[in-house]
Amino acid sequence: MKKQATAKLKVIPLGGLERIGMNITAFEYEDSIIVVDCGLAFPQDDMYGIDLVIPDVTYLKENIDRVKGFFITHGHEDHIGAIPYVLREINVPIYATKLTNGIIEHKLREHNMLTKVKRKVVKYGQHINLGCFRVEFIRTNHSIQDAAALAIHSPAGIVVHTGDFKVDYTPVFGDAIDLQRFGELGKKGVLALMCDSTNASRKGFTMSEKSVGKAFEEIFSDHKNTRIIIATFASNVDRVQQVINTAYRYGRKVAVEGRSMVNIVGIASELGYMQIPAHTLIELDELKHYPDEKTVIVTTGSQGEEMAALSRMAAGIHKKVSIKPNDTIVLSSTPIPGNEKAVSKIINELTMKGANVIFQDVHVSGHACQEEIKLIYSLVKPKYAVPIHGEYRHLIAQARIAEEIGIDKENIFIISSGDVLELSEDGAGITGKVHVGDVMVDGLGVGDVGNIVLRDRQHLAEDGIIIIVLTLEGGSNQVLAGPDIVSRGFVYVRGAESLMEEAKQLLVEKMDYCMSKGITDWGKIKTEIKDCLGDFVWKETKRRPMIMPIIMEV
Amino acid sequence: MKKQATAKLKVIPLGGLERIGMNITAFEYEDSIIVVDCGLAFPQDDMYGIDLVIPDVTYLKENIDRVKGFFITHGHEDHIGAIPYVLREINVPIYATKLTNGIIEHKLREHNMLTKVKRKVVKYGQHINLGCFRVEFIRTNHSIQDAAALAIHSPAGIVVHTGDFKVDYTPVFGDAIDLQRFGELGKKGVLALMCDSTNASRKGFTMSEKSVGKAFEEIFSDHKNTRIIIATFASNVDRVQQVINTAYRYGRKVAVEGRSMVNIVGIASELGYMQIPAHTLIELDELKHYPDEKTVIVTTGSQGEEMAALSRMAAGIHKKVSIKPNDTIVLSSTPIPGNEKAVSKIINELTMKGANVIFQDVHVSGHACQEEIKLIYSLVKPKYAVPIHGEYRHLIAQARIAEEIGIDKENIFIISSGDVLELSEDGAGITGKVHVGDVMVDGLGVGDVGNIVLRDRQHLAEDGIIIIVLTLEGGSNQVLAGPDIVSRGFVYVRGAESLMEEAKQLLVEKMDYCMSKGITDWGKIKTEIKDCLGDFVWKETKRRPMIMPIIMEV
Repeated sequence: MKKQATAKLKVIPLGGLERIGMNITAFEYEDSIIVVDCGLAFPQDDMYGIDLVIPDVTYLKENIDRVKGFFITHGHEDHIGAIPYVLREINVPIYATKLTNGIIEHKLREHNMLTKVKRKVVKYGQHINLGCFRVEFIRTNHSIQDAAALAIHSPAGIVVHTGDFKVDYTPVFGDAIDLQRFGELGKKGVLALMCDSTNASRKGFTMSEKSVGKAFEEIFSDHKNTRIIIATFASNVDRVQQVINTAYRYGRKVAVEGRSMVNIVGIASELGYMQIPAHTLIELDELKHYPDEKTVIVTTGSQGEEMAALSRMAAGIHKKVSIKPNDTIVLSSTPIPGNEKAVSKIINELTMKGANVIFQDVHVSGHACQEEIKLIYSLVKPKYAVPIHGEYRHLIAQARIAEEIGIDKENIFIISSGDVLELSEDGAGITGKVHVGDVMVDGLGVGDVGNIVLRDRQHLAEDGIIIIVLTLEGGSNQVLAGPDIVSRGFVYVRGAESLMEEAKQLLVEKMDYCMSKGITDWGKIKTEIKDCLGDFVWKETKRRPMIMPIIMEV
Repeated sequence: MKKQATAKLKVIPLGGLERIGMNITAFEYEDSIIVVDCGLAFPQDDMYGIDLVIPDVTYLKENIDRVKGFFITHGHEDHIGAIPYVLREINVPIYATKLTNGIIEHKLREHNMLTKVKRKVVKYGQHINLGCFRVEFIRTNHSIQDAAALAIHSPAGIVVHTGDFKVDYTPVFGDAIDLQRFGELGKKGVLALMCDSTNASRKGFTMSEKSVGKAFEEIFSDHKNTRIIIATFASNVDRVQQVINTAYRYGRKVAVEGRSMVNIVGIASELGYMQIPAHTLIELDELKHYPDEKTVIVTTGSQGEEMAALSRMAAGIHKKVSIKPNDTIVLSSTPIPGNEKAVSKIINELTMKGANVIFQDVHVSGHACQEEIKLIYSLVKPKYAVPIHGEYRHLIAQARIAEEIGIDKENIFIISSGDVLELSEDGAGITGKVHVGDVMVDGLGVGDVGNIVLRDRQHLAEDGIIIIVLTLEGGSNQVLAGPDIVSRGFVYVRGAESLMEEAKQLLVEKMDYCMSKGITDWGKIKTEIKDCLGDFVWKETKRRPMIMPIIMEV
């Protein structure tokens, strides 16, 4: 396989650096490009009305003839969520492990693209040859099953990409991370390690998923006389499995609620990733046939997501589940930064309904902490370190670890999305920049909301809008009707009659002034109106609503 | 003093329950009403454009003849921030300790109200007689100096109101909380304890403010060769004092930056609450005369507040301070829930500039944890427990502590803003409800933005606005001009010509239809336009912009 390296390997992240989410990285060697992951990001707080954000893949489109395929490390949205959008334009095969592929297929089906996209299920240990590359899937552990690291064999050397991972010596399902293979590759010689930085600021070792099972055991044993409702991440199949196992031991029936969780549990069971004891799962509608203390509901909404099942229960608008006093409710998760207030709101609402909410020490992370990162570095012993997956400060935290563990400082690369990092045994460096960016998805629109529209939304949100309508006579420019003033989101109009009346009077005078000065250019008239009304409103209210003059001609 | 109780004492919170902020509680006995605190709340995330929220004090206005005065527990915004607004309408004297009064005076001066409002400085241990009440100020500890608990002596009995507090046996300035007086009052017999719940979910004991001084000592000793920038809460005078003390020991000059911090440090120094060694404080402009390693900047912005000094430094737009590689930057605070992402953003930005950011274990809370709450209950031994200051779940957490410590369950009252809680030795209960609510302040407007305007802002933020303008001939209702379509915040118009063209065509047809059917009522025409355009836009984009038809008549 190993042919003489004649070129350098290019690593080009098209997203995913500088923040959590939207992971997608191109690997390029001569005429071959492969892509690892194809994720989405959730909109930032000031991206009003935006549903999700996907990467701008102009670079791939411009090099479409060279793009050979996508390799997906695991089935989380920040690694697969952009597939239905990106594959519409770059239709090449997708390679993934079985469960990951199952989740991708579900997504493609929802977008009516299942027949259009080629998929290939890959086993751990399997190697895929594609152009100049050979890509090997290595077993890891994460908060979703079937996660893989990738060893990307290229003529310039091997790059190990961990994907999102943790080291779980006692996973709930399947085997522990294939540390031996990491060691074997390291022994052979690895050019670069691209390692998950999410938890690089956290000391120690992430606990095994099984430790959550022990917490469940304790909760079930302490609350034998109440209903138990457990909220967690929809995709954490092992967590759901542990709920089911514990419920089974305590003779309880389990109902699964929340669309995404029902979907993923369905896929995972069908593909053999869950073992559900007979007569344990029941439908939500069947709950009424059992006493509360013989039931468990597993549900989505542990992050306080507004429309998720638990939020609807907490708000009292869930169609089938009403929270009762003494319900034991477990949030098996930690708030993702930004969700703290939403989670807190739900805890308050549930508490007000008399429920007992447990939200501490019932969760473990899916990401490697500092000691695990050191372990991977010690096994792989790469020449170059390229921290990935995390905000800048997390990348830097991993860089410090890499340095501590013996990587030369000048061989550690903190790169940004769009950077072209060239790697070879002889040297490495950032040699260029490709176009990258956020494409915002709003309803059916992909990319039709850009910064101008967003800025308008932010402006409208802040102080509302004042619209001034005028009808002028063609030619003479005499005012035939108006100026009329209408506002939305600016002020409660019934309490502001005199303000609006004054504003109107001002505009009448302004129009008289324009006529007397012979100003007939509509652009100029609009500017006069904007400036005069803007100043007036600021003086009176210290607000800056959007001011929008509309002139009609008869 | 103790006259025969002929009536019950009414406790009426007008804000501050169900969430953190906007603390204000009326105490009423026959013809006397006194009010404890007068705070603001910061707007919730969906209160677009709102600057701050103050309580609706209709109840006080309706009973203005009986309102005798305001008693302020300490100088934080959630306890004093509404004073300039509320006192405009209910002009009665304010009673507070010296530093608290100093901060209130500064606020009144900013609002041109200093000469209009009577103020009285009260010492710890002093009693104020006002109507049927005698109010005693008791020393406590908090994250601002001069915090007080109040013992409200009424004919119906004594209510102890802790304000925000912690137990600090070794405070930086002044004495520890007056536990003896709490005990003495308890021995005498306390009717009700209203105790801070903010940290009621946290186990253990809040550490002394002095422990932060030790952390500073360690940081200064470890970073002798770099500039040190420390961000903390503007009002935490003791924290700033400890920075100054440590800087002085290490021979560094200190510059204070951030308007609110400069103000409060000014007030505190003037009133004798800080001891600043000579030649230690310098102006920001003088920094350039000293080597970096001989300087410290204390600044606001530890919560990631967008316009605060640290944010501006991080973003590279601060006029006088540029972050340099190797700067040691300390965030001496913990993110308040909801600020996590903003704080994270600043850490990233500072890290990108090469700074070393320290943000763990350099802060202590100002609120009592579970063991301190137990201590106060054990000293005061009230008949009734009324948890205050906190979200619902925190109130419930304190209720559990109260029960644990021996208060009868039926004597613990979780009350809501507006509840009228009547208390006497013979019994207690919620007997009524008064009107309460949020008054939103936006620019100069107080209360002119209500739910309708907010809903419009939210709608505009989500999907923008489409405006349709039509000029009709009076009488005949013939279309003289338009329909013209203009949009903002909906879609990038240059990419959506055909969508807009189709929409316009649809409206032309709709107007023809209206004419042919003889529909001349403007209301009906507008409804037709709204429905038809709304359906079309939803079908095409899955968005629901605000649709606003405007008809003019010539």
